[in-house]
Amino acid sequence: MTKTENIAVVCASGGMDSAVCAALACRDSGRVYFLHADYGQLTETAERERFGRLAAHFGAAGKLLIRLDHLREIGGSSLTDRAIDVPEADLANPSIPSTYVPFRNAQIMSAAVAWAEVLGAGAVYIGAVEQDSSGYPDCRRSFFEAFERAVDLGTRPGTRIDIRTPLIGMKKSEIVRLGLSLGVPFELTWSCYRSEGTACGRCDSCALRLRAFREAGVEDPIPYEKV
Amino acid sequence: MTKTENIAVVCASGGMDSAVCAALACRDSGRVYFLHADYGQLTETAERERFGRLAAHFGAAGKLLIRLDHLREIGGSSLTDRAIDVPEADLANPSIPSTYVPFRNAQIMSAAVAWAEVLGAGAVYIGAVEQDSSGYPDCRRSFFEAFERAVDLGTRPGTRIDIRTPLIGMKKSEIVRLGLSLGVPFELTWSCYRSEGTACGRCDSCALRLRAFREAGVEDPIPYEKV
Repeated sequence: MTKTENIAVVCASGGMDSAVCAALACRDSGRVYFLHADYGQLTETAERERFGRLAAHFGAAGKLLIRLDHLREIGGSSLTDRAIDVPEADLANPSIPSTYVPFRNAQIMSAAVAWAEVLGAGAVYIGAVEQDSSGYPDCRRSFFEAFERAVDLGTRPGTRIDIRTPLIGMKKSEIVRLGLSLGVPFELTWSCYRSEGTACGRCDSCALRLRAFREAGVEDPIPYEKV
Repeated sequence: MTKTENIAVVCASGGMDSAVCAALACRDSGRVYFLHADYGQLTETAERERFGRLAAHFGAAGKLLIRLDHLREIGGSSLTDRAIDVPEADLANPSIPSTYVPFRNAQIMSAAVAWAEVLGAGAVYIGAVEQDSSGYPDCRRSFFEAFERAVDLGTRPGTRIDIRTPLIGMKKSEIVRLGLSLGVPFELTWSCYRSEGTACGRCDSCALRLRAFREAGVEDPIPYEKV
């Protein structure tokens, strides 16, 4: 393994998937740098606080906060446009939910790649999940593969930055089990799209998380509103 | 031509290439939205002012300023790191100059694609030049082609956003001539990497611009420092 391959950047929201992804990055790399994006999402204060705690837990070699304020101005998503309500979960409906933030992951990963290029890192990790999730187009495996090709061609010659999506094909319940086996502190994570106090339990993100823990046969350690 | 194909987003710095690119976008589209990126570059105040004047000149349907403040924190470029001097031009040297900003164009275009997706635009224009320029890796035609593939896969199904780089294969002198034929107000543009007052005439960007006008046999309408 070359020196370059031993440094990684992980994109982390503070949610359960990015916590498990960060644990894998730390298991497989010598030094891991943690990147978090503030894109004007409703629960950013809670997310950022959890991101900081997770970065400390995992012994991050460095932290970077990127601000994508323009995503609020662009709108088109119930996570960034206060005029659109975050809907109740509807996991049976295959259409792309209003919580999709346009091309968000490309923006986060482009910044992560820039950082990786300067750090001499060999990998950028992101905890995207394709099948057992909300159906966001920028969470598809094929998208990340195409993006990796763009990274190869758009960075300095000799740069090799892998885009690693270790959870992409997993069921959410498998992610819970994997996280437990890696000692991930799920009690530090935040998933709710709507509330920053007690998780609402009814948005898509809460519903996916609750189902994952239920299917894994484990109790979710964070508190939820009584419904 | 469908309605979608008639709306475009153009990424514009305020320089000569982006002005000509904007003129082409406006010639070929019904409505054009102008996006500018502040990434902590030395001459951002001058660039943004020229961007605003060009957007007004071309009758922009809307403007968006994106701030990529993290690029200054990431550093690794003489345009964003105040500790690295912007070098004198050395157009004969084929190595990538210190003015390369890591994976900058991917970050700008990702934001432009997000905006295009919400606007229902069919194209994102960027005035990148491959051969007759500084050799930045994120100005290669192959990079933009790979990026377009990532855009196809990472946006909502049914979205079709072309990445248009109409200047990519042109010589800078050809860009000057094309701009003149389109009535581009070159006197409004800004190219210098170092100065916000009178252009220095000695950085890479000034040297490329001066050579382009000289080869086109036209006088550059902006003033330069006496050398």
